Amino acid sequence: MKNLFIGIDVGGMSIKGGIVTRQGEILAKETVETSVYGKDKRMAQDVAYLIDKLIAKGYKTEDIAAAGIGTPGSVDSKTGYIRYSNNIRLENEPLLPLLEKQYPFPFFLNNDANCAIIGEQLFGAAKGKKDAVIVTLGTGVGTGILIDGKMFEGRGCAGAEAGHMVIKAGGNVCNCGRRGCFETYASASALIKMTKEKMLEDPKSLMHDESNKEGKVSGKTAFRAADRGDESAIQVVNEYIQNIGEGLLNLVNVFRPEVILIGGGISKEQEKLTRPLQEMMDRYSFGAAYNPPVEIKTALLENDAGILGAAGLAIASDGNLSI
Amino acid sequence: MKNLFIGIDVGGMSIKGGIVTRQGEILAKETVETSVYGKDKRMAQDVAYLIDKLIAKGYKTEDIAAAGIGTPGSVDSKTGYIRYSNNIRLENEPLLPLLEKQYPFPFFLNNDANCAIIGEQLFGAAKGKKDAVIVTLGTGVGTGILIDGKMFEGRGCAGAEAGHMVIKAGGNVCNCGRRGCFETYASASALIKMTKEKMLEDPKSLMHDESNKEGKVSGKTAFRAADRGDESAIQVVNEYIQNIGEGLLNLVNVFRPEVILIGGGISKEQEKLTRPLQEMMDRYSFGAAYNPPVEIKTALLENDAGILGAAGLAIASDGNLSI
Repeated sequence: MKNLFIGIDVGGMSIKGGIVTRQGEILAKETVETSVYGKDKRMAQDVAYLIDKLIAKGYKTEDIAAAGIGTPGSVDSKTGYIRYSNNIRLENEPLLPLLEKQYPFPFFLNNDANCAIIGEQLFGAAKGKKDAVIVTLGTGVGTGILIDGKMFEGRGCAGAEAGHMVIKAGGNVCNCGRRGCFETYASASALIKMTKEKMLEDPKSLMHDESNKEGKVSGKTAFRAADRGDESAIQVVNEYIQNIGEGLLNLVNVFRPEVILIGGGISKEQEKLTRPLQEMMDRYSFGAAYNPPVEIKTALLENDAGILGAAGLAIASDGNLSI
Repeated sequence: MKNLFIGIDVGGMSIKGGIVTRQGEILAKETVETSVYGKDKRMAQDVAYLIDKLIAKGYKTEDIAAAGIGTPGSVDSKTGYIRYSNNIRLENEPLLPLLEKQYPFPFFLNNDANCAIIGEQLFGAAKGKKDAVIVTLGTGVGTGILIDGKMFEGRGCAGAEAGHMVIKAGGNVCNCGRRGCFETYASASALIKMTKEKMLEDPKSLMHDESNKEGKVSGKTAFRAADRGDESAIQVVNEYIQNIGEGLLNLVNVFRPEVILIGGGISKEQEKLTRPLQEMMDRYSFGAAYNPPVEIKTALLENDAGILGAAGLAIASDGNLSI
């Protein structure tokens, strides 16, 4: 009985996968290391290895209705090729054609942030919403967009890359080739860079203590030191949130969704992020007093967002939902 | 026989109107001064006065199938209210309800840049295109967006305001309340400001000569002096085009249209604008080597763009086109 789905989340360091029910319950999970750096076309093999490991946990290939895969960067969801990713360094990788030869079930491929908004629409914080955006703050900044209930990919699946909107022209170098992209100011990597810079400036900052406790500078360092009243940390946090807000306001003025969800590890800061961002939207969005308000919330799916989003892609496609 | 349309283009200084055939021929034109500054609700009267003047040129109310109105800012195209405009200073103006009491034909209202893309789709440079964006460079920067053949207004008609994407966070003050909006760097007003600033810095620049000839500093001053090899003017022009390009690249990375049209008076510079902008898109758009290219062209409708766009709104609505 074909009532199970596979969701696969491709990242720079690892590939995570899960067996998922139509209701969004994860029955089994696996992770493999990514070996795709360079151009040796091994990603399809990595994914197949992961699928085989998942099925070996006591499932049957015949029970799998469909599999969904989410990857960073530009994908062609029609042909199943990964066109380009600035973060995992793949170009014109024929991922689905290679996989579909090996398995009897259909595969669906999309950008990981596009998968994330589908996951949140089916199982998370965008349930019942028709116009919603997710902004995932990780190594980069991914954006997934729903317009009138449908995933918006841009013409030829080559849009919805709002992490590569410039918000500070001429600013930080982005590995997409431009300077000043939203991603270079609002990603978790950007926060870590800002934190390290401020720690160099202020040797007495509690950020040193926090990073010693954790063993590294992370996206939490500045937030935890700010909780303890450290002025330098508060400056880092405020500036970082302002950066996120600039990008979100741009998205509001272009899409005016019902809700913008904040995803990725940083979203665990919850209302420390969403409260000031909500204030920015309410005050600075275009014609804020006259136009419909936009709600800022954290994404719900957290650690399993990648698997559930990718599985959601397969579930929505299989069920002929309008994506 | 109801085969004529009225197109009305509301601006900060004047309201222009025309009687237009379904094929886009303008049979008659009129202009009245705008008296809407402040909140005295006289815009409906101004528009009615203009319509009466147009009809008095030898037409019959019965021949008018529908009228379209384009205005700056946020409008509610469903209720016919102007919600908010930062440039004409109107708030919650019930324009269509007031007009529909006075005339037997239906009215359609939309943002002027949204009308412009419909005009170009029906009669101009976006003919046959399904995914197109127009960026009008005038007092402000307006954007009109077609996605899959349909006008994209954002939820509640409150999006598609890409002139209010920030491209230089913390930069020039915008009258929308933010700092660094695309509009403050790429509008004709921004070019004039940049030109004046450079003229103060360089008293020997040929821009002084050009502005003396024209009797004022205009959007042409720097372009004409640059044509004569003036270094300061070349700097202004290059910086201005770079600013436009930053906003266009943002739009490409989000929408990836087939074509972006440049409208407004500055677009008369033709390939002086479009050639360097095309180079920027081909080089810096996200995954440029792998994703579909985007063509940069000037809009075709020029001086009559406002009237034809607004009439186009009425024609498309009347003909049940998908807008």
